[in-house]
Parts: sequence; structure tokens; C-alpha cells
Amino acid sequence: MISTVIIGNGNVAHHLDKAFLKAKTIDVIKINSRNLSNIPKADITIIAVSDNAIEEVSSKIENSFVVHTSGSFSMDNLQNKTRKGVFYMLQTFSRDKEIDFSKVPFCLEAETEKDYILLEKLAKSIGNKIYNITTEQRKTLHVAAVFVNNFTNHLYKIGADICDTNNVPFEILQPLIDETASKIKQLKPASAQTGPAVRNDTETIKNHLDLLSKEQQTIYKILTKSIQKSNKPE
Amino acid sequence: MISTVIIGNGNVAHHLDKAFLKAKTIDVIKINSRNLSNIPKADITIIAVSDNAIEEVSSKIENSFVVHTSGSFSMDNLQNKTRKGVFYMLQTFSRDKEIDFSKVPFCLEAETEKDYILLEKLAKSIGNKIYNITTEQRKTLHVAAVFVNNFTNHLYKIGADICDTNNVPFEILQPLIDETASKIKQLKPASAQTGPAVRNDTETIKNHLDLLSKEQQTIYKILTKSIQKSNKPE
Repeated sequence: MISTVIIGNGNVAHHLDKAFLKAKTIDVIKINSRNLSNIPKADITIIAVSDNAIEEVSSKIENSFVVHTSGSFSMDNLQNKTRKGVFYMLQTFSRDKEIDFSKVPFCLEAETEKDYILLEKLAKSIGNKIYNITTEQRKTLHVAAVFVNNFTNHLYKIGADICDTNNVPFEILQPLIDETASKIKQLKPASAQTGPAVRNDTETIKNHLDLLSKEQQTIYKILTKSIQKSNKPE
Repeated sequence: MISTVIIGNGNVAHHLDKAFLKAKTIDVIKINSRNLSNIPKADITIIAVSDNAIEEVSSKIENSFVVHTSGSFSMDNLQNKTRKGVFYMLQTFSRDKEIDFSKVPFCLEAETEKDYILLEKLAKSIGNKIYNITTEQRKTLHVAAVFVNNFTNHLYKIGADICDTNNVPFEILQPLIDETASKIKQLKPASAQTGPAVRNDTETIKNHLDLLSKEQQTIYKILTKSIQKSNKPE
């Protein structure tokens, strides 16, 4: 049995708590970060708060092993006095969307092998994709994740806006969205590129720009230019 | 039995020809657009060439029913003398990636109901997602598709570049990419947004910019700004 405390009230804390509650080998208590005066003892204390609060929260914890769940915060900057680690799940967590933890990559880091093995055991209780990732590697993954998740989702939003404006159901685009995500399991993204930018189809590009708002045009132009700079024509 | 001729040598012509060959109810002959002097007769003649060649190719066809496969070319601009239509598949076609036509949306347009029904029958022989879409709606879908497919794929490429530069395997990001695409089946993209931009986490944004090339920074800043303009904080 591994005893854990989760500190935090966001989406990561919420979904991790739910997963731990279901796991038979984990005891979990979830507490709010505003209530740190009396933290229960635990094998692993997990800080799942926003990055700018991790330092302060960690400085107030006397439990011996403290980890955080952030993609961009250095393990060494945890301010607890004893053992430190990272329990970063490379996935997008929204309150109202169930998480399938079997598909979540767990990026783990600890100062000692013994602590790493403990984190691995915890991760294996709810998932099965486990990676030993340094702070530097994790920061790389986090910024890459912003491109493939946050920015990609924003492009979906722009696509939905364009459809809404013109009374076309956005759902028609879902198979294309799925295929785009799935295609790069077989092809490198550079080889998977299609469309007017990589074909240098200036007429279509011009027609597209006419259909867009000023802000959409800015994004369209910059991404088109970037594709043309980096991809060879088909 | 529906007899078809496919004109073209690109990825769409290639995959459509393969699918038609497998279908028991379709006869298909595929010809190169440089060889239009002697086109066989057919119920449906399908022009699958680049947009800027459709006018010229269509002007040389004497078969009675001519359709094109373009997302952005108006049906009325076909230059054949008799019946016109559109057979647009809203999907990304790469030479080396198999297409599951059961998941491809067929966006059909014709001048008469009779011709529409014929196109529908053709589409149903290889697929099952059939939409009656006007030229204007199709142009909307096409520009939206550039955002959710071409531009999204380019963000994948940038993610892969960042990983390559820092010796982290890009594959770790695949579950996140899949979840990002799948999440919007349940949530609107605007509601699905997470990450430093929508949280206005300026410290993380600053750290991310330090890890990027100049061109990557430009794209990062513009998309971050656009997210912050359009999404409310979590």
C-alpha cells in the first residue's frame, strides 16, 4: 500500500485523485493548497498546483518525499527539506472529460533510484506508459506539448469558428482531424504534409484569405510561410 | 454498374482509383491529364488534378457528366458543355498511407437531383458518410480543413523538431496528440483549451520562448496571443 497526499484543486489533482481512489494499492487524501497547516503523513506528497505556487507550497511541507506534477518546473526548485521528485503526466486534463490513464505517459524523476522505483510503482498502479525523464527533457516535452496540444486545439477552435460563421457543421471535419493525428504514427509530420501551402498553390491561398477575419489571416499567413520554408514540395 | 474515368496522377486520383477497383459496382479507368485526346466514355468523369488545371482539363472533355474533386473550385467553373458536379472527399491523402473510405466525408454537389443521386450511389459504393454540400459550404470546409489539418500537421512537425533538437523521442507525445483530437468530440474546442496561454502563466511562457528558435518563437507568440484573446481563463 502506498499512502499519498494530493495538494491542489485543479484538473490534474481532480483526475489523479479519482484514479487513486479506484486503485486498490493506493491510499489517497486530497487537500486544498490553502490549508497546509496540518498535512497528513504520507509516503508520497504530490503537489498539483499552478507552477507559480509550487515553491511556496513545497516550502511548507514537512513530509519526507515531495513531488510535483508540472511539465516545466525543475525538480531541484522544490523547497521541501528532504527527498524530491517529479510525477508529470503528459496529457491534457479537462474537468469534464474522463481520462484513460492506461494511455497517459508518466514522466518520472527522482533523486535516488529507490525513490524512482517508488514513483514507478505508484504510476504502474494506475497506468502503464512509464518514462524516466530528466528535468531538461521534461521541459522540452512540455513546450512541444504546447504546440501539439494547446496550439493545435486553438486551430480546431478557429476551424469551428469558420464553420459557425458560415453555417456548416464542424463535425464534418472530425474524421480529417482524427486522420491527421493518426497519420503521423506512420509518416513523419514533414512527410505527411499536404495542402495549398506545401503545393505553393497561390490561387487557393488567395481565395482562402478572402474568407477569413483579419486575425485568422495573420495566423494563416505565418503558418503557410513556415510550411513553405520547412517542407519540400510534394 | 457505374462506369467512371478518373483523370489525374496525384494522391486523390491514386487512392480513389484503388477504392473503385475494389468496389464490385464500379468500372474505372484512370488516365493521365496529359493524355486527353481520347477519353473513354463513362457515366461519370472525375477530374482529380490540381486546382489550376481543372478549367483547362474540363474544357477538353466531351463526356456528358463531369465532376471534380477539389475543395475550393466552384462547380460552375467547370468548362465542359453539359452536366457538372463535385465529388469532394474531405480527407488528407498521402501516397503511402492507406485510406479508410468508410471514415471519409463525401461532399457532393450536382446541378440536378438525378445527378446528385448518381454521385451518391457512387460514393455509397466505397463509403458511407455522404453530405449534400454547396460550393460555398465546400469552400468554407476547405479553408477550415487547412487549419485543422495542414496547419495542425505543421504544429506536429514543430513539436517533432523541438524533440529532435533535444534528443527526446517524439513518440511520447502521440497519446497527447490523440487525446487532443478526440477530446473535441465531447467538448467544444474553446472549452477544451488548457495550458499556459489560457492560464496566462507568463513565467512558463517566458521559459518556453527561451527554448525555441526565432521562427518557433514567432508562431508561439501569435498563437498564444490569439488564445488569450479568444478564450476565457480556466
